[in-house]
Amino acid sequence: MNAETAADLLAAMRRNRPLVHNITNYVAMDITANGLLAVGASPAMVSAVEEAAEFVAVADALVVNIGTLSPPSFAAMQRAAVHAVDLGKPWVLDPVAVGATRYRTEAANDLAGRRPTVIRGNASEILALAGGSDGTRGVDATHGSDQARSAASGLARITGAVVAVTGSVDYVTDGRREAAVENGHPLMTRVTAVGCLASALVGAFLPSTDDALAATVAALTVLGVVGERAAAAADGPGSFRVRLIDELYRIDADAIRRDARIG
Amino acid sequence: MNAETAADLLAAMRRNRPLVHNITNYVAMDITANGLLAVGASPAMVSAVEEAAEFVAVADALVVNIGTLSPPSFAAMQRAAVHAVDLGKPWVLDPVAVGATRYRTEAANDLAGRRPTVIRGNASEILALAGGSDGTRGVDATHGSDQARSAASGLARITGAVVAVTGSVDYVTDGRREAAVENGHPLMTRVTAVGCLASALVGAFLPSTDDALAATVAALTVLGVVGERAAAAADGPGSFRVRLIDELYRIDADAIRRDARIG
Amino acid sequence: MNAETAADLLAAMRRNRPLVHNITNYVAMDITANGLLAVGASPAMVSAVEEAAEFVAVADALVVNIGTLSPPSFAAMQRAAVHAVDLGKPWVLDPVAVGATRYRTEAANDLAGRRPTVIRGNASEILALAGGSDGTRGVDATHGSDQARSAASGLARITGAVVAVTGSVDYVTDGRREAAVENGHPLMTRVTAVGCLASALVGAFLPSTDDALAATVAALTVLGVVGERAAAAADGPGSFRVRLIDELYRIDADAIRRDARIG
Repeated sequence: MNAETAADLLAAMRRNRPLVHNITNYVAMDITANGLLAVGASPAMVSAVEEAAEFVAVADALVVNIGTLSPPSFAAMQRAAVHAVDLGKPWVLDPVAVGATRYRTEAANDLAGRRPTVIRGNASEILALAGGSDGTRGVDATHGSDQARSAASGLARITGAVVAVTGSVDYVTDGRREAAVENGHPLMTRVTAVGCLASALVGAFLPSTDDALAATVAALTVLGVVGERAAAAADGPGSFRVRLIDELYRIDADAIRRDARIG
Repeated sequence: MNAETAADLLAAMRRNRPLVHNITNYVAMDITANGLLAVGASPAMVSAVEEAAEFVAVADALVVNIGTLSPPSFAAMQRAAVHAVDLGKPWVLDPVAVGATRYRTEAANDLAGRRPTVIRGNASEILALAGGSDGTRGVDATHGSDQARSAASGLARITGAVVAVTGSVDYVTDGRREAAVENGHPLMTRVTAVGCLASALVGAFLPSTDDALAATVAALTVLGVVGERAAAAADGPGSFRVRLIDELYRIDADAIRRDARIG
Repeated sequence: MNAETAADLLAAMRRNRPLVHNITNYVAMDITANGLLAVGASPAMVSAVEEAAEFVAVADALVVNIGTLSPPSFAAMQRAAVHAVDLGKPWVLDPVAVGATRYRTEAANDLAGRRPTVIRGNASEILALAGGSDGTRGVDATHGSDQARSAASGLARITGAVVAVTGSVDYVTDGRREAAVENGHPLMTRVTAVGCLASALVGAFLPSTDDALAATVAALTVLGVVGERAAAAADGPGSFRVRLIDELYRIDADAIRRDARIG
């Protein structure tokens, strides 16, 4: 996995303009939809159990995020995940704040067992989901991403998913291979739902390749490079967020080739 | 319908400061509420079936948007629509992504039969609602607005509503008359829920006139002119959106007189 | 209560990085989460009745906002409030648009009886909650904040809460003492959910002191000073909102000492 592959996947994603079906939390909807539109994908937010499974058939990828979980949205997530697997469509699980409550932990474990293509979380979430910690205090990570590397690898082997731990360095593993993305900026932790956006971007990149690890690394690299560019001229998290969307729109394959730091 | 009328209606709307009752989707709430506040209306987001009908009596107009439809919100939409018609208050239907799932199509058809004052959608949505296409793939239009002109006219005659098809040119018809608004900018398709905002602005303009076609044309003209101004200094969809809200606040009748392109 | 105390409380809040549990409305979630993150607190949006009470035990403060009330969220609010009182954790009630519908009024009255630490609303809301007016028309205040001073004082004595009436001047009372915060800017009324953000900031400040009146005054002062700074370079409500978040991140104790206008 290298910068060239990430750059090629960005170009491929833009050509394909994937329809990304999000069942996500209320806080993340705005930045998720706008980030996907800006980067060149087509977002849809379809969460009702009455239609979520049917919509999977129309979409190119599914992203499930448990941030503001409730029984109706959980039912929609379960059905949509089953449908995605049946149809051979990639799907991403974002286990927001797993470990913070029993309800959330049980839901995340249930979904992790439904063969997600990729699981993305911060270190505390991946540790909690892997069972190696009671982990989270709210939604912000209390562990460094390097502390969750072996948990991520174990979780990948158990679930069959590619697992990404995002943080100051992002680690991506399928249980055998591991890649590290060193791009990014601390202001990304001062804007809500940037992690959720990362999961959605992974969903946008998955349909363009059979290599889910490569797609995940590419998506996280693009977001990291964009975050660095946005931070360069930001006065704080408000203007940073605005510029993050601008830069997702402006980023091109050449910039990824030049600025990616993938190890 | 001409620029002078649109300008006058903007001034009248601002004097009246209409209370616009929105039952809308989670993705659109932010830009809808902020757009209405910026342009000089007063937004309210009241979606619970327990209070939606009662709130119609307080509001000056109702806007119903099925973007993130669910059984509870659909019930609230139905009751509120009935109440609006009973009370003689104008109401707008935004049939987001009708055609994408059966649930969505049935709900949109039900609501279209409840005598909306205005129906606004993109070309794919209007084609799907008019029955002339299985239409939509997600929320983004896959047809040009001119392809939906005759469908819009037919839909207007069947429902009794003014029908607006928005796109690179916006077409507004009551089944007899047709007006075209040529203002706007492609960046408006790169920000989520700008179409939903258009529907909400129509709701804000309706209480100031008995001519629903004129109100619709005025609202779309204001948004189009504002979109052009916002795009002039934007670096991408993030800054474009910020400037769109600023320009909704700053726009005045003189600018509409000068820049409107209504045919 | 003076500028020095407000400045000290800002510094203390930042050191403590409180986890603020919000059960809030869909419109306010974005600005609430981003405002709390920017100022240095840690936000969580946990609204499902299945986990809200459990999450109170993890959080440092609870903020309950009835803006987009529904039966499931109301049940979560009730349980979480009971739990907060049982655990001795501070909680804030924001009775958005109380008086506009019966459902809303009954819910707000129920919650006001569950021993909130602080109640914050605009003048129309505080008048309606105190029973002195049928009060509100939608979410925007139709009364000046000074018109609600005696209602606020009475409400404080009845509920045992500190009551804050925000407006061009903010009045904060515990039924005996009263403080006034004169900071702020009219653009704050042109961005949706700034009042909701004010309530959330009060929640962030409460864990750092036993003096709920001081915490409330400090939070409103910080927001007011930040609003003045954001307005100084804004072109309208769009850029104002972006700068508001930037300035929440940048504000420091010295600026509060210098610019606070507390009477």
